[in-house]
Amino acid sequence: MPNSYAPLRAPRRLLFGPGPSLVAPRVYAAMSQTIVGHLDPFFFEVADQVRSLIGYAFSTANQFNMAISGTGSSGMETAVANFAEPGRKFALLSNGYFADRIGEMARRQGAEVVRLAKEWGQPFDPQEAREFIKRERPHMVAFVQAETSTGMYNQGKPFCEAAHEVGALAIADCVTSLGGMPVLVDENGIDIAYSCTQKGLACPPGLAPVTVSPRALERLKARTTPVQSWYLDLQLLDTYYTGHKYHHTASATLFYALREALAMVAEEGLEQRWERHRRNHLAFVAGIEAMGLEMLVPEGHRLWTLNTPRVPAGVDEAKVRQYLLDERSMEIAGGFGPLAGKIFRIGLMGFGSTGENAILVLESLEAALKAQGYKPAGNGPAAAEKALAAAV
Amino acid sequence: MPNSYAPLRAPRRLLFGPGPSLVAPRVYAAMSQTIVGHLDPFFFEVADQVRSLIGYAFSTANQFNMAISGTGSSGMETAVANFAEPGRKFALLSNGYFADRIGEMARRQGAEVVRLAKEWGQPFDPQEAREFIKRERPHMVAFVQAETSTGMYNQGKPFCEAAHEVGALAIADCVTSLGGMPVLVDENGIDIAYSCTQKGLACPPGLAPVTVSPRALERLKARTTPVQSWYLDLQLLDTYYTGHKYHHTASATLFYALREALAMVAEEGLEQRWERHRRNHLAFVAGIEAMGLEMLVPEGHRLWTLNTPRVPAGVDEAKVRQYLLDERSMEIAGGFGPLAGKIFRIGLMGFGSTGENAILVLESLEAALKAQGYKPAGNGPAAAEKALAAAV
Repeated sequence: MPNSYAPLRAPRRLLFGPGPSLVAPRVYAAMSQTIVGHLDPFFFEVADQVRSLIGYAFSTANQFNMAISGTGSSGMETAVANFAEPGRKFALLSNGYFADRIGEMARRQGAEVVRLAKEWGQPFDPQEAREFIKRERPHMVAFVQAETSTGMYNQGKPFCEAAHEVGALAIADCVTSLGGMPVLVDENGIDIAYSCTQKGLACPPGLAPVTVSPRALERLKARTTPVQSWYLDLQLLDTYYTGHKYHHTASATLFYALREALAMVAEEGLEQRWERHRRNHLAFVAGIEAMGLEMLVPEGHRLWTLNTPRVPAGVDEAKVRQYLLDERSMEIAGGFGPLAGKIFRIGLMGFGSTGENAILVLESLEAALKAQGYKPAGNGPAAAEKALAAAV
Repeated sequence: MPNSYAPLRAPRRLLFGPGPSLVAPRVYAAMSQTIVGHLDPFFFEVADQVRSLIGYAFSTANQFNMAISGTGSSGMETAVANFAEPGRKFALLSNGYFADRIGEMARRQGAEVVRLAKEWGQPFDPQEAREFIKRERPHMVAFVQAETSTGMYNQGKPFCEAAHEVGALAIADCVTSLGGMPVLVDENGIDIAYSCTQKGLACPPGLAPVTVSPRALERLKARTTPVQSWYLDLQLLDTYYTGHKYHHTASATLFYALREALAMVAEEGLEQRWERHRRNHLAFVAGIEAMGLEMLVPEGHRLWTLNTPRVPAGVDEAKVRQYLLDERSMEIAGGFGPLAGKIFRIGLMGFGSTGENAILVLESLEAALKAQGYKPAGNGPAAAEKALAAAV
């Protein structure tokens, strides 16, 4: 090993991909404070605030809210590991990558996965989804409210209603909706929702907010087989967060950051925050369309947090991304799976969702596309500016 | 929700419990830098450094080293979930809480757990352990090299040798040894070792360093049943860290901190770091014994990172801890399970392992014990000072 290392110096990135998103200075300031132990009274004070603020962000009266000690994907695994059961039917509504990943996790838990699938980025017909659920009569229904692989929003109320009609519980992946657009756990009837910290909440990655309805908690308590994961066992975690009994060494650092990011959500107010995301999303789309690009997702089904324009014919999206990284220190993402090379994934979320940033990204994208020989149909940044002015 | 929150202000704690330990300012400085994405070239540069530095810290030539995106307990679950298999025999050497937790995780994976148990804090007879392993002929053998519940060190070479003689692989929990005393993965023949960041490495919690031997990797590749955890599936994680293919959104923040903490280990040098921990541990024990307290663990089997003096008769250990927290903003821990109320757990580890801190903790403990009516037999801090002077 070398016996000397220069202190780490991170580049400053403009984060406009599907997450992580830009983090507010106030969150960094909270996060860099000296740690306390995982059983310290101050830690539990912070954890209690986090718990109640998670409930607010999810728009739920549920008391069983917590931050799982892992990234958003660990939130998904928590939902699946605690509620999928070996040999029982698990119904999946899939129109993107993350839905299928839920299915993969459920299969690993031994559940029998049945699937209603649409092409990536295509909406479900609510009636068809209802019929699927009523025909299959599953034990669990899972769907992705905000599909990070496509930019599509499925609010999910009809899926939850149908699930309840057949005695099933509904899991919703809210990874790219929380803090940026309506999740509405109670109004939609979602039983188990999970998310991440690093998108709409504008916090570094590392924790996964989760909420569980009283009905789901009853189901959990009645489980006859043990949850295969000890680390993600919600009932054990509850003995820690509410009973203050040691389970694992939760990270004060990550809890500080999340507390601060959630406090900023509460201070802004959820409705105002959604409106901010909506306005900047609409301005960005106006700019994209003015430049002659098309959106993958039909209007009315789009996420406000994550925009997915199609890559124009003749443009190599990898080169566009490389240009942005090299010339602007800006991160956006491409598509993957069936959408590889076909879409950009451009996030305006959390702290990063501002009118200025919408214009900045359009300007940068315009420069990158021109470097690839693409001639924009019109002035994207100007169209966005106009949309922003009209929205005031 | 309130519409205004004061920015979080954490108390400064002197962390001398079993972890988290004190964090160096240099690590906080790295950690508070602006984040990059989980697929950013800079992130992979940092992750590669972390990977090779983890190999150094574990004293191994293994190439398969990584930091799992969860706390130390997720490292334990990674080891168990990837290597315990349903219906196969999993042999456990248990003389403390964490060994039994490994067993609990293995049972949840469907493994058949067989157990050789000693009283908490009592060493194994290597011959008896060998015979147990050779008689049981298990698929896996697990032991805890550094038992955080008791302060006991089991280096483990005989266990690993016996495991290999019967074709089993050996898992070692190195949560409280890594960065503070010899782990020696290759020399001891450990196949899968895991640890945490928040003890000997002096980094905030949130990641779990893991190393896997080539032999264990072969076993993993030959597995016929899927690993039940998608989040902790080592082969999927490898496609991310070496193939740069998306798996989950690893936290730049936590990787920055771990890179910096590991760089500090390499700069100090492992041997020097162990010697520092040994010296301060011995000074602390000299002080403890001068005060008339006894150590739980027999000499020669003690961790250098975590000291476990017995609570003197008539003293309420909870009150001692409360005194230290209230009067000194100092955290130490008590025992739990069969050792509840019977021991203190006092860590001098990582950045916190200094001669000055050994004396500071002894002085503080003396004051706390006196407040409880205990009269120390002699001057603990002076005895520690003498031991430190003699060690130079």
